[in-house]
Amino acid sequence: MSDATLGSLFRARSVALVGATDRSIWSTAAFANFERIGFTGRVHPVSRKGGIVHGLPAAPACAAIGEPVDAALLMVPEGAIAEALADMNAAGIRNAVVLTSGFAEIGAEGAAKQDALVAAARAEGVTLLGPNCLGFINYADRVPIWTTQPPMPVIQGGAIGIVSQSGATAGFIAAFAQRQGIGLSYQVSTGNEADVNVARVVDFLVDDPTTRVIGLFLETVHDATLLAAAARRALAADKPIVAIKIGASETAARAAEAHTGSLVGDDRVFDAVCRQLGIIRVASIEDLVFTAALLARLGHVQDRRLGLVSISGGVCEMAADQAELAGVAVPQLAPGTQAALRQVLPAFGTPNNPLDVTGGAMLDASIFARSLPAFGADPAIGLVACFMDVPDTPEEIAGYRGGIVRQIGEGFRASGCPSVMLSVLSRPVTEAGRALLEETGITYLGSGVQHGLGAIGRAFAWAEQQEKCVPRPPAAPDQVAERPASEHATLRFLGARGVPVVPLSLARSAAEAVTAALALGGPVVLKVASPDIAHKSDIGGVLLNLKGEEAVAAGCDRIMASVRAAKPEAAIDGVLVGPMRSGSAVELFVGVLRDPLWGPAIAVGLGGIWVEALRDTAIRLLPVTPDQVLEMFAELRGAKLLDGYRGTPGIDRRAAADAVARIGDAALALGPALTSLEVNPLRATATGVEALDALAIWNEDA
Amino acid sequence: MSDATLGSLFRARSVALVGATDRSIWSTAAFANFERIGFTGRVHPVSRKGGIVHGLPAAPACAAIGEPVDAALLMVPEGAIAEALADMNAAGIRNAVVLTSGFAEIGAEGAAKQDALVAAARAEGVTLLGPNCLGFINYADRVPIWTTQPPMPVIQGGAIGIVSQSGATAGFIAAFAQRQGIGLSYQVSTGNEADVNVARVVDFLVDDPTTRVIGLFLETVHDATLLAAAARRALAADKPIVAIKIGASETAARAAEAHTGSLVGDDRVFDAVCRQLGIIRVASIEDLVFTAALLARLGHVQDRRLGLVSISGGVCEMAADQAELAGVAVPQLAPGTQAALRQVLPAFGTPNNPLDVTGGAMLDASIFARSLPAFGADPAIGLVACFMDVPDTPEEIAGYRGGIVRQIGEGFRASGCPSVMLSVLSRPVTEAGRALLEETGITYLGSGVQHGLGAIGRAFAWAEQQEKCVPRPPAAPDQVAERPASEHATLRFLGARGVPVVPLSLARSAAEAVTAALALGGPVVLKVASPDIAHKSDIGGVLLNLKGEEAVAAGCDRIMASVRAAKPEAAIDGVLVGPMRSGSAVELFVGVLRDPLWGPAIAVGLGGIWVEALRDTAIRLLPVTPDQVLEMFAELRGAKLLDGYRGTPGIDRRAAADAVARIGDAALALGPALTSLEVNPLRATATGVEALDALAIWNEDA
Repeated sequence: MSDATLGSLFRARSVALVGATDRSIWSTAAFANFERIGFTGRVHPVSRKGGIVHGLPAAPACAAIGEPVDAALLMVPEGAIAEALADMNAAGIRNAVVLTSGFAEIGAEGAAKQDALVAAARAEGVTLLGPNCLGFINYADRVPIWTTQPPMPVIQGGAIGIVSQSGATAGFIAAFAQRQGIGLSYQVSTGNEADVNVARVVDFLVDDPTTRVIGLFLETVHDATLLAAAARRALAADKPIVAIKIGASETAARAAEAHTGSLVGDDRVFDAVCRQLGIIRVASIEDLVFTAALLARLGHVQDRRLGLVSISGGVCEMAADQAELAGVAVPQLAPGTQAALRQVLPAFGTPNNPLDVTGGAMLDASIFARSLPAFGADPAIGLVACFMDVPDTPEEIAGYRGGIVRQIGEGFRASGCPSVMLSVLSRPVTEAGRALLEETGITYLGSGVQHGLGAIGRAFAWAEQQEKCVPRPPAAPDQVAERPASEHATLRFLGARGVPVVPLSLARSAAEAVTAALALGGPVVLKVASPDIAHKSDIGGVLLNLKGEEAVAAGCDRIMASVRAAKPEAAIDGVLVGPMRSGSAVELFVGVLRDPLWGPAIAVGLGGIWVEALRDTAIRLLPVTPDQVLEMFAELRGAKLLDGYRGTPGIDRRAAADAVARIGDAALALGPALTSLEVNPLRATATGVEALDALAIWNEDA
Repeated sequence: MSDATLGSLFRARSVALVGATDRSIWSTAAFANFERIGFTGRVHPVSRKGGIVHGLPAAPACAAIGEPVDAALLMVPEGAIAEALADMNAAGIRNAVVLTSGFAEIGAEGAAKQDALVAAARAEGVTLLGPNCLGFINYADRVPIWTTQPPMPVIQGGAIGIVSQSGATAGFIAAFAQRQGIGLSYQVSTGNEADVNVARVVDFLVDDPTTRVIGLFLETVHDATLLAAAARRALAADKPIVAIKIGASETAARAAEAHTGSLVGDDRVFDAVCRQLGIIRVASIEDLVFTAALLARLGHVQDRRLGLVSISGGVCEMAADQAELAGVAVPQLAPGTQAALRQVLPAFGTPNNPLDVTGGAMLDASIFARSLPAFGADPAIGLVACFMDVPDTPEEIAGYRGGIVRQIGEGFRASGCPSVMLSVLSRPVTEAGRALLEETGITYLGSGVQHGLGAIGRAFAWAEQQEKCVPRPPAAPDQVAERPASEHATLRFLGARGVPVVPLSLARSAAEAVTAALALGGPVVLKVASPDIAHKSDIGGVLLNLKGEEAVAAGCDRIMASVRAAKPEAAIDGVLVGPMRSGSAVELFVGVLRDPLWGPAIAVGLGGIWVEALRDTAIRLLPVTPDQVLEMFAELRGAKLLDGYRGTPGIDRRAAADAVARIGDAALALGPALTSLEVNPLRATATGVEALDALAIWNEDA
C-alpha cells in the first residue's frame, strides 16, 4: 500500500517559504515557480525580519501565518534548521522540504546533525524531504516546491514521474524531456534521504493515476526491501520503472561518496535486481527519457516483432543493425503483403522489411499513407517504426515536410497496428512540431535511430519480462531450520529439501570405509569429514577413484595422516565415502550469498575456470523459480557448453534449474545466520543433476 | 598517391546541368545550390528544348555551350543517358555526376545498363560519379554539384570530409553536423560506384589540405585494396577515418541488397580491418559526427588520462561510469592538486576527479576559472572534459549562463591542458552559441555525457593505435613457395619459416615406426600420413600415448586397418611418428583464410570449445606483427586463460605471438592458391610453443 503522508506533501494547498529573501536565487526561483506552474493554493513567505519579500508581506514565523499550512520549504542556513523546525511544529505544519545542505554529504559531523534533524522531525510526525534537495514539482496538481527554474513552457498531460537523488540531475532530466516535447507528472529530488527516500516516492507513484512510467536516478538504495516491493507492485500495475544507477565504475563510486556520502552497493547485484523486478536499467538521461516516453505511450506491447519504414535505404540498414543490437526481431514480410506493397511502391522499390519507400515518397507522400496499412497489417509485424523528423517551423509544417508527416499519421491510423515515428537523428521537438504531432495523433521520439531502437528494445524486454515472470515475493520461511553441523549434514539437509545429492556415508574407521565402499559397489571417493576444514583437497583430505578394499583402507590412512599433519588442531569426525562419478558431465557452481542491501541472492555459473578465472556467473535475489534459473543459464557467456559439445549430450537444463531453485529455497530456510552456501560442483548430465559438495558458512553473531 | 582526376571533378569551375528543368525538384535544388554555397564559376543549364531554365537561357546540348566545361550533372531519364554521355563527349567534358537511377540497384537488367554506361565513360576517359547518387559539395572551394538542399547556413572552415554510398545518408550527416555547429570540408555521395568509389574519394581526401578527418557511410567496399592503402596513408598523415559500415545484421544485409544491390561482406573481417588500419568504426551518425568533430579539433592526444569537471555531482558520476564503458582512465589527483583545489572550492566541496565544483559555481562562476588551471595542471591528467551546455540565445549568453562559459574558457586557457566542453545532454548549437564558442576558443560538443565520452574513448583509441602500430603494408612475397604435398611437408615448411613444430618422422612400415619411436625415447603419437584424409582422428587414423615397441607396432597395424576400412581409396604414405606431449599447456588455434574482399586474413583463438562452440577468435589481415598478435590475444574472451589458472603457469605470450606471425608470413609465401591453412593445435606453455598439426587447403583453380 502506498504512503498516504506523501500525498499531503505532494498535494499541499498552502506552502510556507521559510527563510524567504529576495537576495537568494533559490528563494526567488521557488516563489516564481508557483506562478510558472500555475499553483492555485496559497504561498506564505516567512522571514525573521518580516517586511515585504517577493512582493508579499512576510510572516516573522510560521506560527504567525495565522492559517493552516500544509508544507514548509526550509531555506535557512544549517545552523538555523532546528529553530525553523520548532517553529514549523508550533504552527502544526506536518511536511518539510529541506533545501539546506551541510548534512550527511559533508561527512561524520554533518551526519550527526542529520540524525538530530530526523529525530526532531520524527518526534513531531513530520514528513521530511531532503535535506540537500531541490524539492519537487507535482505537475498533475500544479504543486511546485522547487528551488530552481524548471524548463518552460510546461508540457501538459505528462505521465512520467521522475525521482532523483541528485537535484541537478532531476533538473537535467526535466529539461531534456521538455526539449523533446515530453511531459512529466512529477519530478522529485530526494537529496540525502534522511526521511523520504526514492523507494517511498516510487511506492507513492505506483498508485498515482497520472503517472504511467517512473524514471529514477539513483546513487544508492536506502530501503531495498520497500523498493523491491514497490517495483513488484509497479510491474503488476503495468507501470514500467526506468532507472539510471551510477556506480558501475570505481571512479563513480568514489565520486558518489564525495557527492552525498553514498555507498553505491554491488553493481552486479543491482543489475540482477533490475532483471528480476522488471526495472529497465539505462546508462544515460537520453535513454531514460526516450524509453520512458515510449512506454508511456505504448504500454505493454503484445506482439514484439518490428516493422521498419524509411524514405532512405541507408536509414533502413542502420535501423536493422541497431534492431539486432537491441535484440529486436525484424521479420520478413508475408507474400500477400509483398504483393500489396508492389502495387504502391515505385517500380524500382522492393517490398521488404525494412521497407524503403524510396525517394519517390518525396514526390508523392501518399506512398506512406498507402503502404503503411499493408505493411502494418502483415501478420508477422506487431509494431511499426517509421523514420521521419517532425519539422520545426510553421512554414515547414505547412509545406511538403508537414504533408509527409500527415500522410504517415494517416497510414498509422489505417494500419491499426501500434506505431511510432522516430527521427533519423537526435533532435529537439519545437512547440509547432508538437502541435502537428497532437493533430496527427502520432507517437514520436526525436531520438534518432540509435536511441530509438534502444528504447524499442527495452520496451519489448520489459513486456516480455512482465509476461513470463511476475516475480515471486520473498516468503519468509515459516520457521528457521536447524543448522546442519557438517558438510555431510548440509548435503543431507539439501537432499531432504528435494535437491539430488550424492549418497555419502560417514566412516569412523578404515574398516567402516571398506564396508561402505563395498555397499556402493564401484570406485569411490574419500573425503575427510571435519567441521573445521573448509578446503579439504588443499591439504590432502580428498582421494578420488579408489578401487578395491585395499585401496580404500590405505586411502583412509593416507587422508588421516595428511590432515593431521596439516591441521593437528582440527576435530575429525571420520571419512566420507561416496561413489566416484565419471563420464561426460558439466560441473555447475551454485552459490548463495547475503547482499548487505538486498538480502539473500544466488549466483550460478559453470564450475572451474568459468567461475574462478572468468567470473562468469548470473545472479538473482532469492527466492528464484526454475524458470528464472533457466534465464540465468541463458545469460552465461559459456551457456552453449550446457548444450553439449562434439557429440556429447547437453545437460538436462530443467532438472538443473529445479535443483538450483531448491538450493535457494533451502538456503532461505536456514535463516539470516547463513552467510553463504556453496554447492560446487552440482554435477549435471543429460539425465539429471547431483550435488557432490556443499559448504555452508555461518555468521556467528546472527 | 592521390587521384588527380578527382581534383578536376571536385574543383570544377564550369558546370553543365544536363536535363535541367524548372519542374524537377532535383534540378531546381542543384541550380539554387550554386548560389547557396557561393560557387564563383559558371553554370550552364542544358535542355533539349532550349528556352529559359532556372532563369537562364538553356543550351540545347553540351556541345552547344560554346566554352570549355569541367563537369556535367546528368539528370536525364535512364533511357536518355547514352545520348547525354555522347553529347558530353562531343563537348569534351571529362567529368560526369549521374543522378539518374535504374541501374545496378534494380537487379541484373540494370546492372547490364550500368556496365554499358561505364564502358562508354571509360572509352572517352570520363570520370563518373554515380549513377544513383546525389553528387558532391566541396565546401572548401565552394563547388556544389548536389541535387537536394543542403542545411543552411553553411558553417565555414569545416574540416570533415564525408563520403557516403547512400546519398540521403550523406544529407542526414550534413544536416546533423550543421545543427551541432560542426562544419564539413566535403560531402560526397558515391551511389552505385560504377566508376568513382569510396576508396578513391578517401584516397583523394587524404591529400586534401582542408580535410582533417574523413567520415564514411559504407554499405559495401568496392576496392578493398585501395581503401586499405588509403587508410594506411591516412593513419600516417594523422587523418583519422571514422566509419559507419552497415551489415552487422542479416536484416541489414538483406536491406542493402534491396537498396543498391550491395553485398555487405563479412562483418567480422571488416571489424578486424578497422582495428588494424586505425579506422574508427561507429554505429550511428551521431557518434560519427561527434567523434569526427572532436578529432578535427584535438588531433592526436598524447596523454590519454581524463579529468572530468561538472557543476553537478550526478553528472560527475554518470560521466565516470561512461568513461569506464569507453575504456578511458579517470585517475586520482596528485596531493598538490588537491591542496590547490581546496583553496578554490567551497567548504563542502571535495577535490576529486571527477571534480564536482558544486552548486557554489552558480553563485560564483569564477570557481571554474580558478579551479580548472590547478586541475588541468595535474601531472596525472592529459585531457580535461568539462560539462556545461552552451546557451542558445543572445539573452542567455549575456546572462549568467554565458558568464559561466566564459569562465570555463578562461580556465581552459590558463590550464594549458588540452580541453573540451561537453553538453550534459544531447542538444543542437545555435548560431549565437557558436559565436560564443568562437569568442572563447572552446572546443565543444553538444553531445551529452554518453556520446561525448564515447567520442573521447574513440579519439584515445585511435591515438593509441596510431602510436603502437603503424600498419605494415602487405609485401607481396618475392616468389611463391613450393606447395607442400602433405601435412608432414606443411609442418616442415612452417618449421623452415621459423615456426616451432613438433618433430615428426614418416614411417613406411611398423618396423620403421618402432625405430622412430625408439629414437624419440618416450611415449609417442601415431598419425596416418595421407594427402587424401583431412580429419584423421574421425576414422581412427590417430593413436595417442603409445609406450613400448609392441604398442607402437600394434598401433601402426590398427591405424592402417581402420583407415583402409573407412577410406579404401585413400593414398597412404605411411604413418607419422611424433613425441606424445603432456603436462600443462594451452592449445591455440591458428587459421589463415582468404576473404573475398580483403584477401588473406588470420584468426587466432583458444582451441577446443573456445573456437568450436563459442567462436571466440580474433581476426586480422595478413601480414601481422607479433605485437598485433599480442593485441589479438587480448581481444579473446578467454584471454585470462593464457595467464594460467590455479597455480599452473601461463603461456609465453611473446613466443606464441611470434609463432602466429610467422605462420601468417608462411601462408602468404604460399601465394593465392592457398585457400586456408590451419594450425590446430599450436601447443603453448610457459616456455614456448609447438605446432602439433597443420592442414593446408588449396584452390585447385588458382
